[in-house]
Amino acid sequence: MGDTNDHSHRATSLVWAEHEARIRARLEALDPDLGRYIEDFAYGEVFERGGLDFKTKELLAVVMLLALGSPDEIRTHLRGALRVGATERELRETLLFAAPFLGFPRVVGAFAQLKDVLSKERAAPRAEGGERDES
Amino acid sequence: MGDTNDHSHRATSLVWAEHEARIRARLEALDPDLGRYIEDFAYGEVFERGGLDFKTKELLAVVMLLALGSPDEIRTHLRGALRVGATERELRETLLFAAPFLGFPRVVGAFAQLKDVLSKERAAPRAEGGERDES
Amino acid sequence: MGDTNDHSHRATSLVWAEHEARIRARLEALDPDLGRYIEDFAYGEVFERGGLDFKTKELLAVVMLLALGSPDEIRTHLRGALRVGATERELRETLLFAAPFLGFPRVVGAFAQLKDVLSKERAAPRAEGGERDES
Amino acid sequence: MGDTNDHSHRATSLVWAEHEARIRARLEALDPDLGRYIEDFAYGEVFERGGLDFKTKELLAVVMLLALGSPDEIRTHLRGALRVGATERELRETLLFAAPFLGFPRVVGAFAQLKDVLSKERAAPRAEGGERDES
Amino acid sequence: MGDTNDHSHRATSLVWAEHEARIRARLEALDPDLGRYIEDFAYGEVFERGGLDFKTKELLAVVMLLALGSPDEIRTHLRGALRVGATERELRETLLFAAPFLGFPRVVGAFAQLKDVLSKERAAPRAEGGERDES
Amino acid sequence: MGDTNDHSHRATSLVWAEHEARIRARLEALDPDLGRYIEDFAYGEVFERGGLDFKTKELLAVVMLLALGSPDEIRTHLRGALRVGATERELRETLLFAAPFLGFPRVVGAFAQLKDVLSKERAAPRAEGGERDES
Repeated sequence: MGDTNDHSHRATSLVWAEHEARIRARLEALDPDLGRYIEDFAYGEVFERGGLDFKTKELLAVVMLLALGSPDEIRTHLRGALRVGATERELRETLLFAAPFLGFPRVVGAFAQLKDVLSKERAAPRAEGGERDES
Repeated sequence: MGDTNDHSHRATSLVWAEHEARIRARLEALDPDLGRYIEDFAYGEVFERGGLDFKTKELLAVVMLLALGSPDEIRTHLRGALRVGATERELRETLLFAAPFLGFPRVVGAFAQLKDVLSKERAAPRAEGGERDES
Repeated sequence: MGDTNDHSHRATSLVWAEHEARIRARLEALDPDLGRYIEDFAYGEVFERGGLDFKTKELLAVVMLLALGSPDEIRTHLRGALRVGATERELRETLLFAAPFLGFPRVVGAFAQLKDVLSKERAAPRAEGGERDES
Repeated sequence: MGDTNDHSHRATSLVWAEHEARIRARLEALDPDLGRYIEDFAYGEVFERGGLDFKTKELLAVVMLLALGSPDEIRTHLRGALRVGATERELRETLLFAAPFLGFPRVVGAFAQLKDVLSKERAAPRAEGGERDES
Repeated sequence: MGDTNDHSHRATSLVWAEHEARIRARLEALDPDLGRYIEDFAYGEVFERGGLDFKTKELLAVVMLLALGSPDEIRTHLRGALRVGATERELRETLLFAAPFLGFPRVVGAFAQLKDVLSKERAAPRAEGGERDES
Repeated sequence: MGDTNDHSHRATSLVWAEHEARIRARLEALDPDLGRYIEDFAYGEVFERGGLDFKTKELLAVVMLLALGSPDEIRTHLRGALRVGATERELRETLLFAAPFLGFPRVVGAFAQLKDVLSKERAAPRAEGGERDES
């Protein structure tokens, strides 16, 4: 488990994209086993499953994180959704769709995160990285 | 607001399908304004929006209800997902995908609801209706 | 702490009303210290505070229990609200008001509990007691 | 939907008060349809209903937001409660009342928000505006 | 993955005890991959880790399930805690300790589950099995 | 209730340790009755109960706060756990154990708090105090 460079999976490459090294390093710094479980179980095993396309999975991730109160991880999946093919419009529709189920306060919080993600994307398309997201 | 028969929308027709009259009557019996808000705002306004197909929306609904602890409403959307084109496989993948985000207990509860929905569907395809679901 | 009959407070008398003995016995059977904390701290200390009338407090209790997913305890406070002066209309307005904050599924669940409480109240006004509520 | 200046309602005027233009602009910047739903459905339709006075509604909003973990929106309703007639004492009693239902950590978080709102109110009564609240 | 009989781990043997075959069959019937993930990841990988004794882990499981609203899975872990050495007293203390953090309604729900588990244990010590628990 | 210096209990002395005066002052500044309830009920009454050692209690507190989304109070109990004898390893195991029950996002948030607590502990062992924790 000392070697942490060999956990890369198709899912982390696509979802984390240009932030992969940074996110991996952050999780590793929090706890090596935490990072391994997220990469090997959450991404390598569960995310890699067939039956649903990656875009649908990322939109599901977004509303689940919204349901949890939009912790910083929602940024990873808002950006990840864009990376695997979702449009800004689809992200906005996803967040609006959540309102009747989870109420407006949760949705407002998620839109605040989306706004920040989008402004960073525009400032430095696929280069600069936010510093608050992690998994 | 006295007339409650004219709230039908494309979304309720597709998602509630053959259960539309029953679900409408149940919500009406709980509270007429509640029923009106769900039909006209949640379905007529929000669900009818473009930008995401109905199948994706129903899968989003399923994981949000799973995040809330799988109240009986999840049955409406497990069945609704099947009505608008999701396969059993896609529903299973959706629930499994939720585990790393929300934990296994929530997912086990949702699979118990799915099992019941599927057995009812097989016993009486598109005819019999569960009596526990509502919106 | 062995004597559990002397925990009666103005708040439990008003909110639990004719169900006071039954609710006390149920909590006592679950755990004597649990019952004591609920009676002496939750009701005797916190509920008895001034500054807000009992009706407002019961409506606050209802939406907090709705936010928790409407466990059976919500029945105690739906009925308690009626006991301390809330009307059916005020209870309906309270539940409808929660929808934009917490989403429709939570609200539907609470209306299902309210419907049951109201039908029991009408069948046996202030005599019969539901068997599912506790604190 | 392009025109966003005509969504003002009695509820937003009273609750948002001198912050109305700022809050409207913030929601509009997050998403125009989000802003429209909050103004026209949450405030214009649901909040405007009769049967409960505005002060009671704002206290209900406060404990629901506390139950959600006191996101920044709680500031809008702590301040809104003061605007529609609640006293500081009533807000304190409302938060204390929540402790037996939702636990102390949620309540501590809400008191931290209240402290900040009150100190801003005192520094610049009804003029200066916090920059973190939104709906 | 077709063979589902070989997932047994020290953790499932100790925690599920005499209910192991029944719980495994139930999870398998819900979804074979769900069962596999729970047995191999949740139990085989995470639960088997060192550093904390099994009794402490089961008490942690109990309060986490209580925090989720005491779904039926809490029964598995109330019983599992007894199997790995916790006393009834320790379970009662664990539930009471949760009250200041999560509020009384959650705790009352957990005590209701505990009461049922204890009465079943006494009626048929280590033989009869509840039919509502699963993971 | 005016005198707030006499609420010290064995539990607050051990858990809050060198931060006791600061935490007491912070709670007092938020609301004197809030501080009193936390000290006298949560700590003086519930925490002081026998039947579970303080280390187990602090680990239970940590996962309950993690379940609530790791509000700042989790820092008090991560540090409190260390004060009453838990090792860093035990804290890491406790957080990892939570993942299958509550999902990875909650756990990542808790590890971020733990990292910060540990770095402060190392910088100024038992002297410097974080400024964000409270109860």
